[in-house]
Amino acid sequence: MEKSYIQVYTGNGKGKTTAAIGLAIRALGAGKKVLFLQFMKSKVYSEHNILPKLENLDLITVGKPFFIATEGSLSDEEKKRFGDEVVIFPKGQPPENYRALIKEGFEIALEGASSGKYDIVVLDEINVALYFELLSFDSVRTLLKEKSPHTEIIFTGRGAPEELLEIADLVTNMEEVKHYYQQGVQARKGIES
Amino acid sequence: MEKSYIQVYTGNGKGKTTAAIGLAIRALGAGKKVLFLQFMKSKVYSEHNILPKLENLDLITVGKPFFIATEGSLSDEEKKRFGDEVVIFPKGQPPENYRALIKEGFEIALEGASSGKYDIVVLDEINVALYFELLSFDSVRTLLKEKSPHTEIIFTGRGAPEELLEIADLVTNMEEVKHYYQQGVQARKGIES
Repeated sequence: MEKSYIQVYTGNGKGKTTAAIGLAIRALGAGKKVLFLQFMKSKVYSEHNILPKLENLDLITVGKPFFIATEGSLSDEEKKRFGDEVVIFPKGQPPENYRALIKEGFEIALEGASSGKYDIVVLDEINVALYFELLSFDSVRTLLKEKSPHTEIIFTGRGAPEELLEIADLVTNMEEVKHYYQQGVQARKGIES
Repeated sequence: MEKSYIQVYTGNGKGKTTAAIGLAIRALGAGKKVLFLQFMKSKVYSEHNILPKLENLDLITVGKPFFIATEGSLSDEEKKRFGDEVVIFPKGQPPENYRALIKEGFEIALEGASSGKYDIVVLDEINVALYFELLSFDSVRTLLKEKSPHTEIIFTGRGAPEELLEIADLVTNMEEVKHYYQQGVQARKGIES
């Protein structure tokens, strides 16, 4: 059986979720089966109009749409950009109902990863859930232990914890060198969302 | 009319082409039209089994399959990995027939970008063609000048030239933090190819 790997896409730059989508497309093209779980997404993304139509790919959006941040973690520019979309809470004290939502989603991930049904399980934005302590790293350890040997797990999102980087086989840091958000451009339909 | 931007995905890390594929999928989901040109690709990639089936996306592979490098630019590990697939030449002296192939492909890019038909034109791995001087940066300037105002141009590939980073609105550097190639793993169908 082909060995599977743990891949991580992190950093502040653009391209983490899109890299995971592209990876899913390439995998489908090779006849592989993909479970694509989106955590922490604050709205409906344009890819939702395409991905569910593809054979051998299951797309699941976890929990209700929300976007969270800890007090003091957002720049003024980001606060302006996110506006009402963001819920701000004190570090280490995420709202309990959000923890429950992520837990529920993670159970789907665990089931998918251990079922043997998928070659690839994408946990999109899960790093953010870990960063905000909506999910414990022990849950990740359990998933990696219980996953089917041939199932590759892809972690995306800013702020991947050090423990994850240690365990991972492949880590890419998407570094933001220049971003038009800095010029005051808002997220655009079909590009960022 | 919505303003369009110049995006660049560069660096040594994994995820540049896949980010462009994901960006294309997201754009299609928003009803946009995409021209996806692949330069410098050494073989048939798994995404070729999916992308051509999608409405509103045109995929074109430029030139015959090849992969090139300058003398001294590859590590021993890379030489071993690429084997016969790679053509090595002295820096600044790319083979003329390769230049001609890239030129031909770039004319398709120019036509597509200036036609007004596409919202997004992806020039996948074009940075590599620029890096190896298979294409002059003046050609890029011409394309950016003659492109339709609403057409967004996406540049991918290692070694994006400084002039391009200056012109670009968005630049992400995909930094390789850890890669299983370092463990001697070969490129895998449906993951890297």
